[in-house]
Amino acid sequence: MLNTRIAFGAAYYDEYMPESRVERDMLLMRQAGMNVIRVAESTWSTWEPREGEFDFTGLRRVLDAARRHGISVIVGTPTYAIPPWLARKYPDILAETHDGPGRYGHRQNMDLTHPGYRRHCEIIIRRLLEEAMPYDNVIGFQLDNETKPYDTCGPRAQAMFQDWLREKYQTVENLNAAFGLAYWSNSLGSWEDMPDVRGTINGSLAAAYEAFQRGLVTEFLTWQRRIVDEYRREDQFVTHNFDYAWKGWSFGLQQDVDQYAAADAVTVAGCDIYHLSAGDLTGAEISFGADLARSLKGGENYLVLETQAQGQLAYAPYPGQLRLQAFSHLAGGAAMVEYWHWHSIHNAIECYWKGILSHDLTPGAAYQEIASVGRDLERLGSRLTGLKTRRSVGILVSGRSQTAVKHDASFSGMDYNEVLRWVYDVLYRLNIPCDLVPDMARDFSGYELLVVPCLYAADRELIAALRRYTAEGGNLLATFRSFFCDEHGAIRHYAQPWGMTEVFGLTYDQFANGKNVPGVHTWMELLRPGADTQVLLGYDHYAYESCAAATIHPYGRGQAVYLGAWLEEGRLETLLEELLPRLGVPVPAVRWPLVVREGINGQGKKLTYLLNYSEAPVSYCVTRDCEELLSGTCLTAGDSLGLPRWGAAILESRGQ
Amino acid sequence: MLNTRIAFGAAYYDEYMPESRVERDMLLMRQAGMNVIRVAESTWSTWEPREGEFDFTGLRRVLDAARRHGISVIVGTPTYAIPPWLARKYPDILAETHDGPGRYGHRQNMDLTHPGYRRHCEIIIRRLLEEAMPYDNVIGFQLDNETKPYDTCGPRAQAMFQDWLREKYQTVENLNAAFGLAYWSNSLGSWEDMPDVRGTINGSLAAAYEAFQRGLVTEFLTWQRRIVDEYRREDQFVTHNFDYAWKGWSFGLQQDVDQYAAADAVTVAGCDIYHLSAGDLTGAEISFGADLARSLKGGENYLVLETQAQGQLAYAPYPGQLRLQAFSHLAGGAAMVEYWHWHSIHNAIECYWKGILSHDLTPGAAYQEIASVGRDLERLGSRLTGLKTRRSVGILVSGRSQTAVKHDASFSGMDYNEVLRWVYDVLYRLNIPCDLVPDMARDFSGYELLVVPCLYAADRELIAALRRYTAEGGNLLATFRSFFCDEHGAIRHYAQPWGMTEVFGLTYDQFANGKNVPGVHTWMELLRPGADTQVLLGYDHYAYESCAAATIHPYGRGQAVYLGAWLEEGRLETLLEELLPRLGVPVPAVRWPLVVREGINGQGKKLTYLLNYSEAPVSYCVTRDCEELLSGTCLTAGDSLGLPRWGAAILESRGQ
Amino acid sequence: MLNTRIAFGAAYYDEYMPESRVERDMLLMRQAGMNVIRVAESTWSTWEPREGEFDFTGLRRVLDAARRHGISVIVGTPTYAIPPWLARKYPDILAETHDGPGRYGHRQNMDLTHPGYRRHCEIIIRRLLEEAMPYDNVIGFQLDNETKPYDTCGPRAQAMFQDWLREKYQTVENLNAAFGLAYWSNSLGSWEDMPDVRGTINGSLAAAYEAFQRGLVTEFLTWQRRIVDEYRREDQFVTHNFDYAWKGWSFGLQQDVDQYAAADAVTVAGCDIYHLSAGDLTGAEISFGADLARSLKGGENYLVLETQAQGQLAYAPYPGQLRLQAFSHLAGGAAMVEYWHWHSIHNAIECYWKGILSHDLTPGAAYQEIASVGRDLERLGSRLTGLKTRRSVGILVSGRSQTAVKHDASFSGMDYNEVLRWVYDVLYRLNIPCDLVPDMARDFSGYELLVVPCLYAADRELIAALRRYTAEGGNLLATFRSFFCDEHGAIRHYAQPWGMTEVFGLTYDQFANGKNVPGVHTWMELLRPGADTQVLLGYDHYAYESCAAATIHPYGRGQAVYLGAWLEEGRLETLLEELLPRLGVPVPAVRWPLVVREGINGQGKKLTYLLNYSEAPVSYCVTRDCEELLSGTCLTAGDSLGLPRWGAAILESRGQ
Repeated sequence: MLNTRIAFGAAYYDEYMPESRVERDMLLMRQAGMNVIRVAESTWSTWEPREGEFDFTGLRRVLDAARRHGISVIVGTPTYAIPPWLARKYPDILAETHDGPGRYGHRQNMDLTHPGYRRHCEIIIRRLLEEAMPYDNVIGFQLDNETKPYDTCGPRAQAMFQDWLREKYQTVENLNAAFGLAYWSNSLGSWEDMPDVRGTINGSLAAAYEAFQRGLVTEFLTWQRRIVDEYRREDQFVTHNFDYAWKGWSFGLQQDVDQYAAADAVTVAGCDIYHLSAGDLTGAEISFGADLARSLKGGENYLVLETQAQGQLAYAPYPGQLRLQAFSHLAGGAAMVEYWHWHSIHNAIECYWKGILSHDLTPGAAYQEIASVGRDLERLGSRLTGLKTRRSVGILVSGRSQTAVKHDASFSGMDYNEVLRWVYDVLYRLNIPCDLVPDMARDFSGYELLVVPCLYAADRELIAALRRYTAEGGNLLATFRSFFCDEHGAIRHYAQPWGMTEVFGLTYDQFANGKNVPGVHTWMELLRPGADTQVLLGYDHYAYESCAAATIHPYGRGQAVYLGAWLEEGRLETLLEELLPRLGVPVPAVRWPLVVREGINGQGKKLTYLLNYSEAPVSYCVTRDCEELLSGTCLTAGDSLGLPRWGAAILESRGQ
Repeated sequence: MLNTRIAFGAAYYDEYMPESRVERDMLLMRQAGMNVIRVAESTWSTWEPREGEFDFTGLRRVLDAARRHGISVIVGTPTYAIPPWLARKYPDILAETHDGPGRYGHRQNMDLTHPGYRRHCEIIIRRLLEEAMPYDNVIGFQLDNETKPYDTCGPRAQAMFQDWLREKYQTVENLNAAFGLAYWSNSLGSWEDMPDVRGTINGSLAAAYEAFQRGLVTEFLTWQRRIVDEYRREDQFVTHNFDYAWKGWSFGLQQDVDQYAAADAVTVAGCDIYHLSAGDLTGAEISFGADLARSLKGGENYLVLETQAQGQLAYAPYPGQLRLQAFSHLAGGAAMVEYWHWHSIHNAIECYWKGILSHDLTPGAAYQEIASVGRDLERLGSRLTGLKTRRSVGILVSGRSQTAVKHDASFSGMDYNEVLRWVYDVLYRLNIPCDLVPDMARDFSGYELLVVPCLYAADRELIAALRRYTAEGGNLLATFRSFFCDEHGAIRHYAQPWGMTEVFGLTYDQFANGKNVPGVHTWMELLRPGADTQVLLGYDHYAYESCAAATIHPYGRGQAVYLGAWLEEGRLETLLEELLPRLGVPVPAVRWPLVVREGINGQGKKLTYLLNYSEAPVSYCVTRDCEELLSGTCLTAGDSLGLPRWGAAILESRGQ
Repeated sequence: MLNTRIAFGAAYYDEYMPESRVERDMLLMRQAGMNVIRVAESTWSTWEPREGEFDFTGLRRVLDAARRHGISVIVGTPTYAIPPWLARKYPDILAETHDGPGRYGHRQNMDLTHPGYRRHCEIIIRRLLEEAMPYDNVIGFQLDNETKPYDTCGPRAQAMFQDWLREKYQTVENLNAAFGLAYWSNSLGSWEDMPDVRGTINGSLAAAYEAFQRGLVTEFLTWQRRIVDEYRREDQFVTHNFDYAWKGWSFGLQQDVDQYAAADAVTVAGCDIYHLSAGDLTGAEISFGADLARSLKGGENYLVLETQAQGQLAYAPYPGQLRLQAFSHLAGGAAMVEYWHWHSIHNAIECYWKGILSHDLTPGAAYQEIASVGRDLERLGSRLTGLKTRRSVGILVSGRSQTAVKHDASFSGMDYNEVLRWVYDVLYRLNIPCDLVPDMARDFSGYELLVVPCLYAADRELIAALRRYTAEGGNLLATFRSFFCDEHGAIRHYAQPWGMTEVFGLTYDQFANGKNVPGVHTWMELLRPGADTQVLLGYDHYAYESCAAATIHPYGRGQAVYLGAWLEEGRLETLLEELLPRLGVPVPAVRWPLVVREGINGQGKKLTYLLNYSEAPVSYCVTRDCEELLSGTCLTAGDSLGLPRWGAAILESRGQ
């Protein structure tokens, strides 16, 4: 189905309805051009109200109705929120965390390693799949929901962690040396002496524990996948809704999951993207989310399993924004846009994360605007599917560095995602689309420019790969706090940036907080450039006169730029504007708030998405003959196309 | 006594004195026109230093001295702070709360349901009453002190709560449906599966637990009342010092007690009112506190059992303010003004809540000013007692809505009392006196205008009563967030405002946070008025152009105003100034800071209190022949009366 | 050694090095004029990796190398951070605190009263001393490291506290009376009823517990001293690195230790001083730290056992500042300046508290600047040692008042150190050097002026001593919140300031928070001066017109100034500028940022340190013939000496 038209729909919760209205809802969906729903993932206690007693009446009612109305269904395994009887059966089933033992009520707080949890997960998954398999309109399965390790720190998890360490390091002496445990007398005399990891003052040990926790997520999803594989038809996909760091909205790399590894458990990548709206809508999160989701399965189209309809207060959209958001997802390569959720809930913690329908369950303004998108998608069918993009800029993202920076104790308050988004957002505003490249990659030769923000912890192989990339003609742009530590987060004890001094043509051994230095945020390195290194930027302060803030240096057939300071955003934008063309990346004349994204659709035609992220109308000068798909207007090169406030347009080029 | 003159006095703690000075204190009191003290309620460990060993020497010394000096006494039961031996005897006597188990030391942290606590309460109460009964100058009893449930959450309380739920809902299926427990798999398969309520993510369940907790307070006070009734003479009253939500001072409705229900346990309402002072003194808390206390026993005069003398730092009064405050309490209908407390304490947590005497225990400036009030009261006797007021505006206050809003998860950070005080304070500044009407009331026909702020949760009966009131000619003014949920805090799934769309002539299904919308604080509903609905206010923003912010609509013989937005205070004041006359409420020309309050005293004369809440002198034009009681001056209609900064005057009309 | 030249060096951690480089490091040290290191105090787990298994290879390697290079060594006992096996052996060895039980990992979190901890401390101390004694270059020992009670609150500590109370007060009745425990029913009927002190609402009880805790530190250090005394040679000193209240840097009096008592356990006082740097460097903390450290052993020279090299981000120095700081320590009377630490660490919680060497372990800018100091010190030898100072102003510091104010519940948020530093810093800026005098002193006759900030709690003897001092011709200047409580923190119930009304010629019984009063911070007392009292300052507010804010009064042969208000700093500076000459203290014309400090060196010559705490060059007019020691320039009275930004100079007078 995903090949012939964009999937468009919502999470659907018959079980939360104050009264059954499944027929009415399906009709409304069809009228809104919706063709897919996701069901079942939240309500284990509905499907199994008492241990061993199952009731799938409501699920069958929905699956039947969906089949009747030609609506496809994604069935989710309901394991992220356990029923009360299960919590009562196993008092230790909730994860003990850094904050102590858990309390029943919240979701996503169980211990993934608990054998009883696993046993009952398996039972409910198998029973649910048995119910779902007879339905040919079930097109795929979602494993669990935004799975995390839930900071499990109980005795079992810590014992597993010790085994994990033991396997890796063999002896405590090796571990002491790798992590520098001698500090404050923490070195181990035997494995039995390993203390509760929650008290550690050693960043390497804390980071290792988090890596272990991330491994639990991968293992858990892989385990669920194997169960699902015993049942599913070949045409049914398996997905998972990966999410992002949360800052009140989807902000950056998700710390708690190694998504690149965990994505092996699914056949198609999925994601959940939420963002501010109204006057705070910028489109950056949709773009960032897409770039990350696309990279999980090597550039393939991905599923937006959840995104906001009306959302909470700060997400309530202005007229036009729901359309703009939907087309922005498609511009990023989404094969599906699924709202969370169909109807606003009347109880409990998320009753103000509003769905397509408001609490009155009648089609209101949000429904109408979403329906207009649905009808466009229905009409345009395969002209929007299979979008492929090719980007000349890659940004290296590193979960290992993210964790290491979190534990770096530098008093800088630096957050990895703040640095990542600092670079990303400036490129976004310059209308330079990027790929997000995982730090397990070793070949970057496809990119004109590779941006490396805050690669705080890196192993020798990655560093060698980056040297090779540059030597062979690549353009490398790295920021402060890169190449500082080894893979354990232990600081390198040779010249910084370690292994890269010849590449960047500089070294440094001091840094400061940038207080009183114009244009610097909270971090500055006192760079000492070599003779053949060009200084791009210095520091405007008497104490740092002899140091550079940003440099460029030829290395092999390529060039290497080093940004030693966390500059204010405007200064970074100015710098990149001038610098990027020298690094093989032309900067378009059109800038944010008019976002332009290009790609080739499944029919081989070039699509150009125009997205106006502002409350002022803008106009765009068409560069080749094309059809504007939403209006059906034909345009000729040179024509001016007007976009209203928060407006979107899709240009399909004539010919190939 | 309360009929012949205003009771005036202080809480008196002989047991906290560094040395006995009861004779000297009583003399000073008499010289200050004081005629009442409250004793005994704080020091169980003094009366019973070891289990079963009683020592009332100090109490008798005070009761004897008071009798000798003609000072009346209110005796308080000393159950709000337990002695160390009792905490040692029952290690579980302190309430386990949301924050875990308690620690001995603080007051008001025991478990009201603890059988051992109850047993020992009964013993000390009976012994104390036996001591007190021989004294004819004991005029009444105070039950406990500002009783609350102290967030008791231990296993016994939770088991009692389950019984309470079971009785109300019979089956878990009923409970699941009423509260929407299906969300996140929280629905119950059996009563035995009920988890610890502290972890719940279901606002209805959390609110129900708080309602259960409030019931404990009513039950506890009723239980104490029954014991006291076994002893007291008919002429002795029973009271309790109800307090208010605390924001550093008495701010609004007390969340933790159902005062309207608990007031059945007393014969006369009492309250504790504290407020900012010096440059921050407005009088609003005194006025609000009076309006609430008066309503607890159907408009009867009430006792101010505690109010500040010198208080803490932010309460230290300017010259004149202590007089102004005292007369403000009387203007609100108080039959007694009792300071907390006579002397400043020299130890422990409240040693900087200063009394009438400072730490040096000599009569200082505060004593002198209070004494001038006392002498006025002595002189004026029954000319100030028995004040009855009649107010044409009622404000509906709803504890149920307060709790529901607290759990509403709307990301608005809305606090019920902030909305209540927003309306109340604007009316206060417009010099429009109000009654506060409980949401258990069903007949509002006595009011020209009924104001309904934030009636978030309401049952069908109340809604029907409000419809009836309006249909029969009442003027109704409701704010945003009203009529949204049922009595369990479950959101209504029909058109909003539920059950009232025809009354207000509008509906809406969307709301926003008001960011970037001029004049809006943090909440705005996108009202869609009907054809015969007049728009009073719109939103000044392109995205909300088609919506109304405030409307008026005829309904039956009455009118209904709906305020959809939390407006900035100045804008509300302007709106009400224009609107109130249309709703049958004339707006006086005199405004705050000159507060005017009228009533009829026990002799049938009209009293007018003039209260100047400013540091500038003001003058007031007298509207009828009268006597100014404090100065004894006779005035004629048309005379101008000057009030100094922070000044007060009382006009008694000539004739009836 | 300390007599012939200034000791200059660093803490040295061979055991933290990623590879052994002891030879290279010693060479670098020698080249930098460094002659001392401190070792061994942090890594018990290195010296005893498993119980009873010792490994001092690394220690011997360092001691041998130091001996070879002529570097002296201070050996620290490694008891402040316990090894994992010890935490495993005694699960209760970590202190239970107000926040509950501890977790292994951090330092300084064990229970000093734990018998197992003591036993193993003794074993490791004795073994370490046996290793160290053969080395003649070991010049002294440091006991533990910045010892504190670590808020130990477990059952054993509380039982010891009860014994401590019992011994002091004999009966619970005495205790009840002294502390006013009757409040809120907390009075004790028997010692067995004593509750967990963590819950108390009685400030006297809380303060007594803290005094008990401080006693544990003194006892622990004394116990270690006795062990060390069994081993050490007569020429070897014993010291301890006392620290200061921490506010991100060394700020004021250390609340958790009674340093004046604990200093009996050492032969020479030591301290750790950290402070902001770069644009925030003022020198005040170095000066304050010196004045306190000097007073611990009666004015003797002291050791700076730790001060920052490059420190953390906010401590990163500008060029010149490391020199300025080093000479500032000497100006205060330091006999040693030892950096923390030699090399930047590559792991764990303090890896960004940078040493003399950066992480690359090569000599960088910080090393070079420190080396220039070292070479100056080497060259100047005994010309800088044995500095004696004589100060005409003393500031009385009171740990008892500090604790009492912390628990005073006055809603003022007052912190003792903020008041102390408020006075201290203004005097510092006026270039008036002070001694800090402990509140156990009784003879102040050596001072022209005794400043008494916030002496909130004082016993009769101290008050009598202050009366005597003034009567006999001393000048006394006390601030608000002095003489308010007895030694238990119980407020005096007579006229305030208690026992001093005749001295200051005033009384008061009211205070306020100073809101709306120009020039007042957060505290103001409404002073009522007597007839012969001169008002220095009033309050600019109608409500306080009749009160004084600051007064001066003759008493006996002396004068007494009372500051009733926490003035804004600028106003205090102006007041003191005018007032000090009247109190016998001339105010120099030279002001901060040029700090001038004088003293007599061990050869009887007068030294004048000039310290330019600013980024602007300044010049200084020389008042007598002298040699500027750092440059070797000879100067004549009247010459102008220029100091660059952040520059320092040392003038040695010709002749005596």
